[in-house]
Amino acid sequence: MTTDSALTPEQILSAAEDVLRRFGPAKATVVDIARTLGVSHGSVYRHFPSKAALREAVTQRWLDQAHHTLAAITAERGPAVERLHRWLATLFAAKRKKALDDPELFATYMTLVNELSATVEAHIETLTTQIATIIQDGIHQGEFRPTHVATAARAVFQATAHFHDPVHAAEWADPKCETDFEALWNLLLTGLRSR
Amino acid sequence: MTTDSALTPEQILSAAEDVLRRFGPAKATVVDIARTLGVSHGSVYRHFPSKAALREAVTQRWLDQAHHTLAAITAERGPAVERLHRWLATLFAAKRKKALDDPELFATYMTLVNELSATVEAHIETLTTQIATIIQDGIHQGEFRPTHVATAARAVFQATAHFHDPVHAAEWADPKCETDFEALWNLLLTGLRSR
Repeated sequence: MTTDSALTPEQILSAAEDVLRRFGPAKATVVDIARTLGVSHGSVYRHFPSKAALREAVTQRWLDQAHHTLAAITAERGPAVERLHRWLATLFAAKRKKALDDPELFATYMTLVNELSATVEAHIETLTTQIATIIQDGIHQGEFRPTHVATAARAVFQATAHFHDPVHAAEWADPKCETDFEALWNLLLTGLRSR
Repeated sequence: MTTDSALTPEQILSAAEDVLRRFGPAKATVVDIARTLGVSHGSVYRHFPSKAALREAVTQRWLDQAHHTLAAITAERGPAVERLHRWLATLFAAKRKKALDDPELFATYMTLVNELSATVEAHIETLTTQIATIIQDGIHQGEFRPTHVATAARAVFQATAHFHDPVHAAEWADPKCETDFEALWNLLLTGLRSR
């Protein structure tokens, strides 16, 4: 039992995830979430004005799960080649972990994600901007050839879709994935490198 | 009305596609296909020993639709850079046309494709081998740097998944697709080119 006054948005989002896992996105209600927390549904609505707002927040949180690590790699000093590789590998590992460890919750979130295209676009925009930052650093440090940074970042993000876009999740259990990822990385790296 | 003796596999496959379009993969039967052709279902079974064999053949035909053009580009003489670009652009155009012109039939085939992983793997193997042939030509002609050809071909195929894998079909109506494709191509080309 959580007292209403101490209720945090984070607690609500965790409870929402539990309820989604149990009932699926079609059946999960705010009342179920409130019951899980032992509070009134009014307490939930105090933090999230509608069921739609709550769904969006919980999806956002799920999408952002690897963001802290990725943002930290983006902000580091150090060789851009190594950072970009680590950034992409971290994104792949995070997505793959979510897909393979809890396939049912992953499927649930895929349903939500399909209904929230604006949230997904903002997520992709954040990620692409981080890639752009690392590429810009690389150009500045003489590791990458000068290029239109935003275009290159978008191309790198799309080229690696196989290793982060949830539509490819079914292929991530394949043990060849790691080798494939490194081969693709080498091709992209050669494309980015200064001569 | 088709006479039984003149019935060709191609006529059966076209009729099967019509029936799939009308009834969907769950409801389409061999009897429906025979009725469309005005023949007995025994006549259909003479060419395809089971419903499963027929489903596989019709899916194979659908997957192979752009193959003649792609195989022709692969077999051409001429600069490998231009051929690889045209090969990828042709594959993208063919897949996009199928997805946008007839979305219901496309969805039907996606269901079949998910059940026929061996057929899809063979299809991907054929396409990747064609890319490898062009890359090999490019290395031979001094356009591309020497590299492990099969690995590079697989990396190019996976890097361009955004522009040919049906799981990305929802994104192909975006008018930015063309620009994105060219940006990705330029990055890959720089990765392949000899210095």
